[in-house]
Parts: sequence; structure tokens; C-alpha cells
Amino acid sequence: MVSESVSPLAPEWLVAPADANGLASLVWPRSASRDNDGMLVIAGARADDLVREFGTPVVVIDEHDARSRAAETLAAFDAAASRHGGSARVYYAGKVFMSADVARWMTAEGLNIDVCSRGELETALAAGTDPARIGFHGNNKSLSELERAVTVGVGTIIVDSAIEIERLDAITRRHGRTQRVLVRVRSGVHADTHSFLATAHEDQKFGFSLAEGEQAAARIRETEHVEFIGLHCHIGSQIFGVAGFRESATRLLEVHARLLESGDVPVLNLGGGFGIAYTSVDDPADIRDLADGIVDAVAEECDRRGIPLPILAFEPGRSIFGPAGVTLYEVGTTKPITVETPSGSAQRLYVSVDGGMSDNARPALYGAQFSARIASRTSSADPALVRVVGMHCESGDIVVDNEYLPGDVTPGDLLAVPSTGAYTVALSSNYNHVPRPPVVAVRDGAARVIIRGEQIEDLLARDAGITRGVPAHHEGEK
Amino acid sequence: MVSESVSPLAPEWLVAPADANGLASLVWPRSASRDNDGMLVIAGARADDLVREFGTPVVVIDEHDARSRAAETLAAFDAAASRHGGSARVYYAGKVFMSADVARWMTAEGLNIDVCSRGELETALAAGTDPARIGFHGNNKSLSELERAVTVGVGTIIVDSAIEIERLDAITRRHGRTQRVLVRVRSGVHADTHSFLATAHEDQKFGFSLAEGEQAAARIRETEHVEFIGLHCHIGSQIFGVAGFRESATRLLEVHARLLESGDVPVLNLGGGFGIAYTSVDDPADIRDLADGIVDAVAEECDRRGIPLPILAFEPGRSIFGPAGVTLYEVGTTKPITVETPSGSAQRLYVSVDGGMSDNARPALYGAQFSARIASRTSSADPALVRVVGMHCESGDIVVDNEYLPGDVTPGDLLAVPSTGAYTVALSSNYNHVPRPPVVAVRDGAARVIIRGEQIEDLLARDAGITRGVPAHHEGEK
Ligand SMILES: Cc1ncc(COP(=O)(O)O)c(C=O)c1O
Ligand SMILES: Cc1ncc(COP(=O)(O)O)c(C=O)c1O
Repeated sequence: MVSESVSPLAPEWLVAPADANGLASLVWPRSASRDNDGMLVIAGARADDLVREFGTPVVVIDEHDARSRAAETLAAFDAAASRHGGSARVYYAGKVFMSADVARWMTAEGLNIDVCSRGELETALAAGTDPARIGFHGNNKSLSELERAVTVGVGTIIVDSAIEIERLDAITRRHGRTQRVLVRVRSGVHADTHSFLATAHEDQKFGFSLAEGEQAAARIRETEHVEFIGLHCHIGSQIFGVAGFRESATRLLEVHARLLESGDVPVLNLGGGFGIAYTSVDDPADIRDLADGIVDAVAEECDRRGIPLPILAFEPGRSIFGPAGVTLYEVGTTKPITVETPSGSAQRLYVSVDGGMSDNARPALYGAQFSARIASRTSSADPALVRVVGMHCESGDIVVDNEYLPGDVTPGDLLAVPSTGAYTVALSSNYNHVPRPPVVAVRDGAARVIIRGEQIEDLLARDAGITRGVPAHHEGEK
Repeated sequence: MVSESVSPLAPEWLVAPADANGLASLVWPRSASRDNDGMLVIAGARADDLVREFGTPVVVIDEHDARSRAAETLAAFDAAASRHGGSARVYYAGKVFMSADVARWMTAEGLNIDVCSRGELETALAAGTDPARIGFHGNNKSLSELERAVTVGVGTIIVDSAIEIERLDAITRRHGRTQRVLVRVRSGVHADTHSFLATAHEDQKFGFSLAEGEQAAARIRETEHVEFIGLHCHIGSQIFGVAGFRESATRLLEVHARLLESGDVPVLNLGGGFGIAYTSVDDPADIRDLADGIVDAVAEECDRRGIPLPILAFEPGRSIFGPAGVTLYEVGTTKPITVETPSGSAQRLYVSVDGGMSDNARPALYGAQFSARIASRTSSADPALVRVVGMHCESGDIVVDNEYLPGDVTPGDLLAVPSTGAYTVALSSNYNHVPRPPVVAVRDGAARVIIRGEQIEDLLARDAGITRGVPAHHEGEK
């Protein structure tokens, strides 16, 4: 059946589905399916069993999904580079989701780890990551962060400013240790995406202009213990296609080639940013096609310049971890709301769940689109346009702005929002004093907590007015 | 001197100051000043002393500022209402900043407390708040939240949906307890502000339409133990002027008057939303003028209808707590960046601090503007246009988009961002595994922690991959 229930409130891109129970293949973890009861199953674990054990909301990670995407990414870039006689490295961008287990999964699959703060660094180290396999980012690394990175032997520090070179020079000399560094540059290539996610505008905080980057490399080469190994550029996030990477690489290689005239430049790091499907209309390329397209373009440009293909490094986060995550909520209330439209009034069904902008800030932060399905059953009710909203005291607390769900969606239903692996838990807050949900990894039907959920007691424990006790003579007085 | 240093990159509204050390009076806590060293002093405490004791970033709350604004708000509405023979109640909206100490300050000043979740409710109760003085909000209160609220004796529950009435009916009957409720309605009045902050659009999740609200009140009057006491409406946040409140109240009073024909309607709650100054161009009205304007309008409308003035309730949050907060950061790096403009290239000075979107998400979430000053000294250097950015791995991590600071701002300077009391700590996250800063209340030169700052260890403690230990046969395998 083609749905008759297209709503005048629906945005143009949203197609009313014939079946509002379907799990669009690119949007869900690869293992996602429904069993004979219509129950959503992820990596062999039923949604209702997961909720019984862990409550709602809960963030469910398909371990195999994340690991296989990691392995496929490395294999794809490796294969593409070796066809040109080169090699590739892939760093997992820990900022999208960092935990000790995930760091172990990634290194077990052959990836390195990209960290951007002391907290991420300590997590990677606590996970047993070989420090040599860590890359350390940041526009404002503190002296103590730099010192820690140098002394534990972090493989690569991505230098972001002139002052950082002098700090590293001082720290490496003090400790008599050599530190390899990449120089981050702004190639001027803008990613074709939400401007907040674009990180290669000229007018932004990261790195050096190309000209300054060349000088920075020269200055590093003068130091005793800081070793320049190449240029780094990250052009943005949630990018589809290779054109931006090609253009950025071309610009970087011009500087890279000049730097080769006065020394080694073994590495070129092109950052992360590969897009994923958040809704069924997103159509990201296969990682093999992306890898081939990017690597071929770089190799061609190197050929043209008569320079060797450097070791190519990449830092994807979202494309590895995003599709592996599904957030399970329980529906608490539903409410049809009448809205005026140019062609008369229409109804929107508001579906409230027991989480929201505290566990997924991306819709509020970036206007990000997600999709949703009833997890706990299938239904043959006609699809209705819904807006999934959270339980926070703010009208912008939207989880899924527009989606078609079976029109009989009702309190008590479990609701699943897919592709929540990246930048959700990482950005989560305690807004409205709401505890953050647990994160659970599933594999072969077995589930285990990888990040402990909070209780209200955890929040109260930071409240010094509770833990300190109340000196009666002070409190309550005017 | 009128500054010669107006930048072509500056937005039109931003005036280049004659003195980039000045503390604009509406933007800073009332006690803020500079001592003879040029050091910023808040409530008698020097910025450098606070930082020595608590580190950076640190959120500093001027206790007297918050308490006096609370007291003045209550006095203003009380005075305005009593001129018409009525009375007023003020609820502090805990969502802007909630802690046990703050709940005690507010109740000591005569205010009630508005909570919107179990966590906020438990905090208020742990602070010793009389439950009768608590109002409980939420579009998706859980059954256990409702049960807890009813059984502890919360004064008012603000009913948000039809299903909630039935839930309350069942719970109150089961416990044989009477529960007073307000009915939240959407008056259709939009606040004139960022749309994400407007909460009375028809097309949003909260409450009932006016017609549905009237039916909801009728339904509540049929129940045995749920007691209808009036209507509630919140038209948005960061609102300047009384026009929106007047229009909303007029619409509500039409329903209110009809409901009076069949029973008591003792209360009218018009919500919160009074705007504050984030930069020196914001010019919020004095709370006395606002109170007079709003109350006079309501009284006039009641007169016109020949109905008595109800008890008027308000729920301000931002206007009480926002101006009391100042965040202190340390400058880590500065970086002049050349930007192309239509009239040639110009420079913007990027100033990186040791916090950012994790401790203040409002710029990223709402495009909110803030201002900044060097806290640790004054300077006679020419003002330069700066962008204060955080240390997060994201180009949208901006603290103050545009500000003039002395052009010699340099690493090691302490930087103060004022008016950060509301919706900053409440929305804070651990993005990039960055620990959240402590919140410190200052009064008469003495400082004490009211919310404990986090350490990296606190973050690692939630990481089950660290706390669980590693079964060697499982981890690291493919
Ligand atoms: C330097 C850097 N590398 C890698 C990433 C990861 O990007 P993505 O998750 O889009 O692959 C980011 C994201 O902001 C980044 O800033
Ligand atoms: C119902 C309600 N009351 C009060 C407030 C407080 O608003 P403000 O902080 O703008 O005064 C809010 C804020 O969203 C709200 O939703």
C-alpha cells in the first residue's frame, strides 16, 4: 500500500512509508531485525529484554557493527593505498564516543586512537592503548596536557598554534624526549554541511593558514626534539562525497611538496568527516568507494608533482560509531496538536519519551534529523506524522522532528531511535537534573554495561549543599 | 577616547568601547568591581584568589545578587498586586540553576520553587524545602514521579496532558490524598525571541489549547481528589517588555472567567521569561516596572470582566539567577586570523580559554551572545575585536562570538564572562571528556563550593571498561 496519510505538515524530503515498521538498512545497525513477535532485536538481544535489565532510556551499541565498520575502513584505505605502493593509517576519533572498551575494540581492529583532551587521553591509556598509537588534538592544550602526552610517549601531537611549538620545544628539551608532530592547517575548504560542523573555514579557531603552516613546519625543524612528520587538515563532518577531500588534499600537497625539498614529510593526515545515514533519504557512499576516490586523487596529485605518496592518515569517528548505536526510550504521553497551515488546519501527533536533549543534544544543537520506530511491536495502523519530543522543560527539546510512525503509537510502547552512536552520549548533560542513561554493548545476544548509567544520587553527590550538611546558624537567614 | 579600532568584522550592534576594561552595570553582578590592582572583585573576593583556591574554569555566584533579585521580584509583584487588593507568589524556576543551597536561598527570601523533574524535586526536598511550596512541571512526568510528588505533598502540580489527569486521579484515589493542580495552556502568544526558547507556539509539546484546557479543568473538577486551582501559561524566555504577558493573560482570563461560573479559580500563573542583559546593548526593564505593567494589565482585564483578581503567580529563573554568575577562565592561546571581507582582509584575534561549550552550551545551542573582560588586570592597550573560543574539538565551540578586549590579551590572563548564572551549569556536559567546573558562592569576601567540580577520575568511574577490569580472554580478540 502507498500511504494515503501524507501530512501537510511533513517536510518535503520525508517520504510517507508504505510500512512504518521497516528498518531502513543504512540507518540501523547491521544486525537489527524484528523477531516473530515484531520485537526489535539488536545483535541477538531483544529490545524488551534490554529494557527489563537496564531501564529506559538506554543507549545500545552493536559491538560487531562498530568493530566491523572500523575494520572495513582500515581495509579500504589500506587496499586503496597499496594499489599505489603506499600505506594508510586510521585513527578512531574518540570525541564521538569514548570509553575503555571502545578504545580496545578499535585497537584490536588495527586502528589508532585520536584523542582531544586529557580525559580522552587518560581513558585510552587506562584501556591499555599503546601510547605510540595515540594522536593528540586540541586548539588549547594545557601545559600539563602537553607534558603528560610527551612523557607517556604519545605517538603524534597535532600542533595547533605557534605558541604550542615553543611549549613543546621547552617540554621535550626538559625531558630529553623526541615528540613527533603534525601541523594542523586550514586548507580553506569548507565542508558542505551545517556550518557549525565545518572546521576548515578560514575564520575559525583551529590550526594555521597554509602559509603559516609552512613556517610552522620550518620552525619545528629547527627545534632539537620536536619532529615534524607532516600536515593535518580536517574539513568538516557529515560529508558526502570525495570532492572536498580531493580539493583539500591538493592544496595541502602544494605545501607538502615544498617542505619535501628541505626534509622528510612522511605523513599526510586528511582528518575525518565521512557522512552516515540518519534517515532513509541519506545515501552515504560505501567506505571502499570513498577510500578509492580519495586515495586515487591524492596519488594522482603526487604523481603530477613527482613526489612519493605519503603515508595517508584518516580520523573518522561518526562513520565508524554512529550507525552502531540505538537509543531505546519508553513512550510516556501522546498528544495530537492542531496546527494552522496555509491550506487549513492539520494535526501533528506529539509523542513524548523519557529522555530528550539531555541524552541527545544534536537536534537542538545542529538541527540534526533522526528517525524512529516502535521497538516493542509492529503495527498495521496507518502511518501518522509524529514529532518525538523529550521530557525536558523546553520547547526545543525535540528528538525526531518529523517521522511517520504507526498511528496507534501509545504510552508504554518502546521507541527506538537509530544512528545515535556518535556525538550523543559524548554531548549528554544533566539538564533538568536528569541522570544520564547507561550505555550497553550487545554481542551474540549478550549485553554488558560499558558506561554506567547515573542515578539521581549521583547528581545529589555533587551538590555540596546536601553533602556538606547545613550549619543552622547560617542557612535560611537573610 | 573614542576607539579608532572599529573592526570591519564586528557586528553592527557591537559598539567599540572607549575602555575595554569597564564592567557594564547591568551585565555584571551588582557587587562586581575592580580593586586598586585592576583585579576583578566579586562580592569581596578577588578573581585571582578564587582561581588559586578553585582553579579554572570556575563558576562564581554572587549570593547576595541572586538573593536580592529574588527578594525584589517578590516585593515588586506583591506591591503591584496589593495595590489592586490582591497578592502574588513567585516560584524560582529551578531549571536555570538548581542546588540545595540555592533552593534554601530562594525560600529564605520568600519564594517558592518550581521543579520540572524528579532530580530537581529531590534536590529541593533534600534542601529542606516545604513540599507545599513546590510546583511540579513537565510534559512527560513518569508515574513514579507523579506518585512521589503526590505522596510528599507537593503544593501544585502543573498538569500538561489529558492522560496525566487520569494518572493523577488514580494516584490520589489510591493514596486518599488531595492534589492541587494548575492546567497548563498554550495561549498562542509567541515570545519575541529565539524560536527555540519560545514555549507558547501552538505547534509545541506543552499543555493544552485554550479550548482543551477548559475541558481539562472541567474533567478535573469531576475527580474526587484532584483539585483545579487555575490556569498556567509560559510564553517563552528572555522576553523584554510586558506586551506578550498582557496578551497572554487576556486570552487566559477569558477561559478563567468562564471557569469561575462553575467553581473556584483562585490562581493565575503567567510563567517566567523576564529578559536580562548579556551584553551592554541589552536594556531590560526594572523588575518593578515589569511587575506594575503586567499586574495592572491583568487587574484591568479582571475589572472589565467583573471578576476578582486571582492570586498571581510567576516563575522567573533567568532574571533572578543569570546576572549573579560569572565564569572565570584562563587564556591558553591567542591567535590572530586573517579573514577576507568585502572590503579587503581583516584580522580577528582568537582567544582560547580552558573551557567552552561543555560549561556554556548557550552560544552553540541558541546562538546566544555573551560579553567578556580580562579579570586579572586592566590594560590601556587599544581595544581589539576578539572571538573567545573554548578548548573543544569543534569549530562551533565559541564562548563569546564578538567582543572588544584590550589588544594585549595574552596567555595566562584570567578572563571573566558575566551573566552565566542561568542555563549554563544546568546544561553543562562532559563533551570531549572534560570535567565540569565547580560552582562557588561568594558572600562578604568568603567563598564556598555549592556544586563540586569534577575530576577526570569522576569520568573514569562511570567507564565500566575501567572499573570492571578486563577478562583477558574476551577483550582484544576479534
Ligand atoms: C580533528 C578532527 N578529526 C576527526 C573528527 C571526526 O569527524 P567525524 O566524526 O565526522 O568523522 C573531528 C570532528 O570534529 C575532528 O575535529
Ligand atoms: C514552565 C516554565 N516556567 C518558567 C521558566 C523559566 O523561564 P525564565 O528562566 O526565562 O524566567 C521556564 C523556562 O523555560 C519554563 O518552561
